[in-house]
Amino acid sequence: MSELRKDPVTGRWVIISTERRKRPGDFRLESVEIAPDDSCPFCEGHEGMTPGELLAWRGNGSPANGPGWTLRVIPNQFPVLRVEGTLDRQGEGLFDKMNGIGAHEVVIESPRHGDTLATLDAGAVEQVLWACRERVQDLKRDRRFRYMIIFKNHGAAAGASLDHSHTQLIALPIVPREARDEVDGARAHYQAKERCVFCDILRQEQADRRRLIAENADMVAVAPYAPRFPFETWILPRRHQALVEEAPRHDLAALARLLGDVLRRMNTALRLPPYNLLIHSAPVVEPVGDYYHWHVEIIPTLTKVAGFEWATGFYLNPVAPEEAAQVLRDARV
Amino acid sequence: MSELRKDPVTGRWVIISTERRKRPGDFRLESVEIAPDDSCPFCEGHEGMTPGELLAWRGNGSPANGPGWTLRVIPNQFPVLRVEGTLDRQGEGLFDKMNGIGAHEVVIESPRHGDTLATLDAGAVEQVLWACRERVQDLKRDRRFRYMIIFKNHGAAAGASLDHSHTQLIALPIVPREARDEVDGARAHYQAKERCVFCDILRQEQADRRRLIAENADMVAVAPYAPRFPFETWILPRRHQALVEEAPRHDLAALARLLGDVLRRMNTALRLPPYNLLIHSAPVVEPVGDYYHWHVEIIPTLTKVAGFEWATGFYLNPVAPEEAAQVLRDARV
Repeated sequence: MSELRKDPVTGRWVIISTERRKRPGDFRLESVEIAPDDSCPFCEGHEGMTPGELLAWRGNGSPANGPGWTLRVIPNQFPVLRVEGTLDRQGEGLFDKMNGIGAHEVVIESPRHGDTLATLDAGAVEQVLWACRERVQDLKRDRRFRYMIIFKNHGAAAGASLDHSHTQLIALPIVPREARDEVDGARAHYQAKERCVFCDILRQEQADRRRLIAENADMVAVAPYAPRFPFETWILPRRHQALVEEAPRHDLAALARLLGDVLRRMNTALRLPPYNLLIHSAPVVEPVGDYYHWHVEIIPTLTKVAGFEWATGFYLNPVAPEEAAQVLRDARV
Repeated sequence: MSELRKDPVTGRWVIISTERRKRPGDFRLESVEIAPDDSCPFCEGHEGMTPGELLAWRGNGSPANGPGWTLRVIPNQFPVLRVEGTLDRQGEGLFDKMNGIGAHEVVIESPRHGDTLATLDAGAVEQVLWACRERVQDLKRDRRFRYMIIFKNHGAAAGASLDHSHTQLIALPIVPREARDEVDGARAHYQAKERCVFCDILRQEQADRRRLIAENADMVAVAPYAPRFPFETWILPRRHQALVEEAPRHDLAALARLLGDVLRRMNTALRLPPYNLLIHSAPVVEPVGDYYHWHVEIIPTLTKVAGFEWATGFYLNPVAPEEAAQVLRDARV
């Protein structure tokens, strides 16, 4: 029997269609294998192929834009938004528009072409998170920006155009709809109950345990109650905190460890799946600290989104989160 | 320079990224070619392979569930929701769920395997629309249902699991989020201006003409001002009407003619693209007649939706609607 479930944050309903239930082996899985590429612009030694670096970890004091780094942040060569110019909001009759002011940066996670977040050690993954934190703190000084998106596309099926492991950061002059829905939902919960809805979720999931995937002292990985996608996974900090860029170093270190663990579990159970990783954090200019709670969402690319989903914003998921959590809990890594 | 644009109904922002602009030839197009299939359950003569028909057009008085039809409506053999049972709404601590009560039907649009909405004559397309109208009118007598989704996936890349041309209909016990956002946005516009936002869009697009694709006496096809996807196309009735199932026959006849025309333009310009087609209509139990306005959305499958879109509900579209409209206006059919 299928079931309709409601996400407690956004109010979004999903159908968990267990009659059509699938096991990991039933998906047409597309494994991400990284082929060598001598012309990869993100590899060490190819720094001249990218725009100049905005930030780099260079333990040995090597000069900028040459070899010797463990991580580099560069502007995206094909940015969807540009930093230069004045934000110009205009009407066009009924319609509203503004020019494409923003920032679009790339965190190159390793100098080596074949590394991934699942194979890097926890220290290197922590470096990636710390670099995102530093870039967000720098970008938010620009008062034109209202929201920072940190995301990663792993594998061509998940939208990656380059194989070399990288994370992207986009600063936006508006708060996008998904973030707005989460913030509004969290505010409504807080107004009704004087509690953070994400803290409530953490409390219930830890008592229930059926949707727990893995945890450590500071972070908890769960299959959400109303997942849009098979094997959708959230990692939440135990400590209530609205903005990822205000997270203490030990929270990011704990996230790095748990993130590597979860990605290795997915690699085992789902055979090196493509995935999207997103950091959901609060809008940078709104006082939402009491009720918003930053977190990470990981969505393996296992199914196609079709007309039904576009029509309705209503997702059809053939795998119950209790089953997905068990598969990932049991995965040997 | 890219541009941020806001949809006047839902308030959803999109980035029109014209610096990365692509022409139709730049997409990795996947043409939909329908291969013969002797075991297709939707072909005439194979009626025994499907559940019994709920409705059929049989001009010659042929008996049910045998040959002699021009259109058949059947229950989906693998429904995501089932009609049987009592709707049972439950809490689970913080979470809300209900059992999967609903209906899931399939309109087989032609007895012939190779037909599509683009190759069928206008009379046959009108039959499809009329069958949807009849089924919705029947299903809405069931007071458990609050929303009816009518949608079509054309081609495997758009999520179709069978090649034989068909439309699906799902009756839901809730109003899904996309419909809720449109209804709420239309209500807010009406409260501010005492006008239907869709009527306002029609008026502006007809005066402006840059985003007009095609029109006839009753229907207008436009590239929306803030499209999520390249070549996204809306067809709106000139006559204000909230519910598709209350549309008069000549509106559906006019839609059938314009829909065939638009799909043939897409087939020429985009080389037989996969697509999703959706009918957006009002929730069946809410009095929204003053401000909601039913319409059709057609979304060719040309790009992959990646992490950025999931993260934000914020779409990145490499083709300006003014350019898409011109390509489709100029397409020879």
